[in-house]
Amino acid sequence: MAEALVETPGAAIDDACCVPADGQDGLSGGDSAALAARFKALADPNRLRLLSLVAAGDSGEACVCDLTGPLDLGQPTVSHHLKILVDAGLVTREKRGVWAYYSVVPGALDELAGALSAFGANA
Amino acid sequence: MAEALVETPGAAIDDACCVPADGQDGLSGGDSAALAARFKALADPNRLRLLSLVAAGDSGEACVCDLTGPLDLGQPTVSHHLKILVDAGLVTREKRGVWAYYSVVPGALDELAGALSAFGANA
Repeated sequence: MAEALVETPGAAIDDACCVPADGQDGLSGGDSAALAARFKALADPNRLRLLSLVAAGDSGEACVCDLTGPLDLGQPTVSHHLKILVDAGLVTREKRGVWAYYSVVPGALDELAGALSAFGANA
Repeated sequence: MAEALVETPGAAIDDACCVPADGQDGLSGGDSAALAARFKALADPNRLRLLSLVAAGDSGEACVCDLTGPLDLGQPTVSHHLKILVDAGLVTREKRGVWAYYSVVPGALDELAGALSAFGANA
């Protein structure tokens, strides 16, 4: 996990993140801020569609050149949304030749899913 | 699930929500909008802390009177954040006497977690 976050230092979070605390005090302020930042990156329909396209791409990656058509958005807008996903530590970006290729950070979505399930388990 | 959403018509979503489409087209616009609305409700540290406190409450519920202290926020602010969680279909509100009691909508968080895991499974 730590390796996967190397390219996104702005979103780097320690191992304690995303695990709701037991007991009555709930999440700490720091944990909740790190989690909220990731959910904020997911709080946009176009970013969710981009994330689903990247996840469904051949070999687990997608060229930015293949992401503009399905959403009917211009490349600057698509790149803006992808940067937010990268900054949140959910997606990585690799430049090869003239194109950038994006892939989902292994484990990042499962980690978020685990945090949500942990909430639900206490309900 | 349908019953649990009756109190929050604004956030009501059909059964097709939250399941990423297979194949190269990714999420539909409608599915992504419904999902994004829920993630937006989670994209705030104070709302995440409130959600964790509600989930950890005795009998799976928490009185609003017990939620202001841990966050050091005034009751109007706490009620504002709780309303956003209710409107998103994540939490229900029940008035009993002078206080409102909140509980997590059964299955709502697991449903979101499942959507995230489904993304990850394709990665």
